[in-house]
Amino acid sequence: MVGRLAVVGLGLIGGSLARAARARRAAREVVAVCRTPAGSARARAAGVVDRVTVDLAEGVRDADLVVLCAPVGTLPGLVRAAWPHLGPGAVLTDVGSVKAPVVAAAEACPPRPGVAFVGGHPMAGSERSGLQASDPDLFEGRLVLLTPTTTTPAGVVGRVTAFWQALGSHVRLLPADEHDRAVAAVSHLPHLAAYALVAVANGDALTLAGRGFGDTTRIAASAETLWIDIFRGNREPVLAALADYQETLARWEGLIRAGQWEALEVDLARAREIREKLA
Amino acid sequence: MVGRLAVVGLGLIGGSLARAARARRAAREVVAVCRTPAGSARARAAGVVDRVTVDLAEGVRDADLVVLCAPVGTLPGLVRAAWPHLGPGAVLTDVGSVKAPVVAAAEACPPRPGVAFVGGHPMAGSERSGLQASDPDLFEGRLVLLTPTTTTPAGVVGRVTAFWQALGSHVRLLPADEHDRAVAAVSHLPHLAAYALVAVANGDALTLAGRGFGDTTRIAASAETLWIDIFRGNREPVLAALADYQETLARWEGLIRAGQWEALEVDLARAREIREKLA
Repeated sequence: MVGRLAVVGLGLIGGSLARAARARRAAREVVAVCRTPAGSARARAAGVVDRVTVDLAEGVRDADLVVLCAPVGTLPGLVRAAWPHLGPGAVLTDVGSVKAPVVAAAEACPPRPGVAFVGGHPMAGSERSGLQASDPDLFEGRLVLLTPTTTTPAGVVGRVTAFWQALGSHVRLLPADEHDRAVAAVSHLPHLAAYALVAVANGDALTLAGRGFGDTTRIAASAETLWIDIFRGNREPVLAALADYQETLARWEGLIRAGQWEALEVDLARAREIREKLA
Repeated sequence: MVGRLAVVGLGLIGGSLARAARARRAAREVVAVCRTPAGSARARAAGVVDRVTVDLAEGVRDADLVVLCAPVGTLPGLVRAAWPHLGPGAVLTDVGSVKAPVVAAAEACPPRPGVAFVGGHPMAGSERSGLQASDPDLFEGRLVLLTPTTTTPAGVVGRVTAFWQALGSHVRLLPADEHDRAVAAVSHLPHLAAYALVAVANGDALTLAGRGFGDTTRIAASAETLWIDIFRGNREPVLAALADYQETLARWEGLIRAGQWEALEVDLARAREIREKLA
């Protein structure tokens, strides 16, 4: 059990984290750091944390575990801002969908004995956003990726792992750059692909859409500001995944144009077999 | 209520149609026409129809309504094969995802007084296939598209509409070519897009996939033989939709590469707003 947990940013993920930590008694006390007085007021009204502040330094002081739950683009700055105010024995982590920039920011901070950072990313979310969409069971049964470096103390990884496990998650470790390439393929590219499917279906066609279109494009209802931030933060891996995708589509376009149905069937069968195994 | 209903092909759609017609008493008697003796045996064992035959002529003779539930590529041939054996007052329809070829085949048949065809397409399905995946509620609340031509008698459209309404569906009429362009955008392209997302995610990345990837690619578990048949049958509209999609992705790639985040945000916001309205 964590003593004092500070959650910086009380949106979908931060709100769900605070509620999950309380519901599962994973922390004795939960402090929320909000960006604005209006956000603080909403957090207080929701009654999901013990204390709310708009002062980052005050919020993270004396916390045993600080989890940054803010948009990807703000994370490096938040690491730098929080770092000097962390108390001895504190662990700083985050939930961002892009890991290299925030890990680099933490590595560039002046070493402080007994203070450590490890990057984190729960593979859980929703096309909805904000505290009102938060869910104390959001992390139940979900995978959480941690990206320790060669200098991250093993004990720190162990403490953050135990915290996520207390929320019902499974934890897996991998290097930040590997993480960023993998999520570009299984999360960032699918968002671009879904937004594009909606963009090309004109109004009349959309009135005919069935369940297949609905499921395939559900994530295109996600807040674009958060996703622009992610594409910007993970630019090179996203461009690489997008290039692979365009190459595959161009190949299939060529096969359809040429009537090479057997070759197309081989490609689709391979994809279908892989997808079936995902369950 | 239909007197005798003949269902040609007892897979996911045909099986669901037979079960729905029985469950909702939309037909007094249901006859299944199967392609093989093995299929007939399975149909008999499932007990979802009153009579089973492998003889198309025998199966459609004396039927009041004949619904072709076979793969898209076989439909024009089945229309030509069934046509001479339809009794006076019989209506022939189908459930194929591509309408122009089957409508053209029916229009080319020698006119027979009291015998008529109208194309149909229920916007309902599943990534699963076969009689074992059939569901008597598959059409409940779903849209069914009918594609009458200028020569289709209004009474025929009315009878097929009433049949689908008895199964819980809403019916909408539109020209076959308009149907084929629209479903290329909202159904056929999304299948290609989903298969391609799975194809470009390598094995390691796939182990990190969350719910977003799962939903976006669910339809990539669909039987590729059925989809090859659909892409072949709707080649030009599919190529046009695919070209629009590639153009959009190429534009967004350019914006990401150039760091033009505001322009990308405008495009994504437009897509997000459209998707939100779909509910």
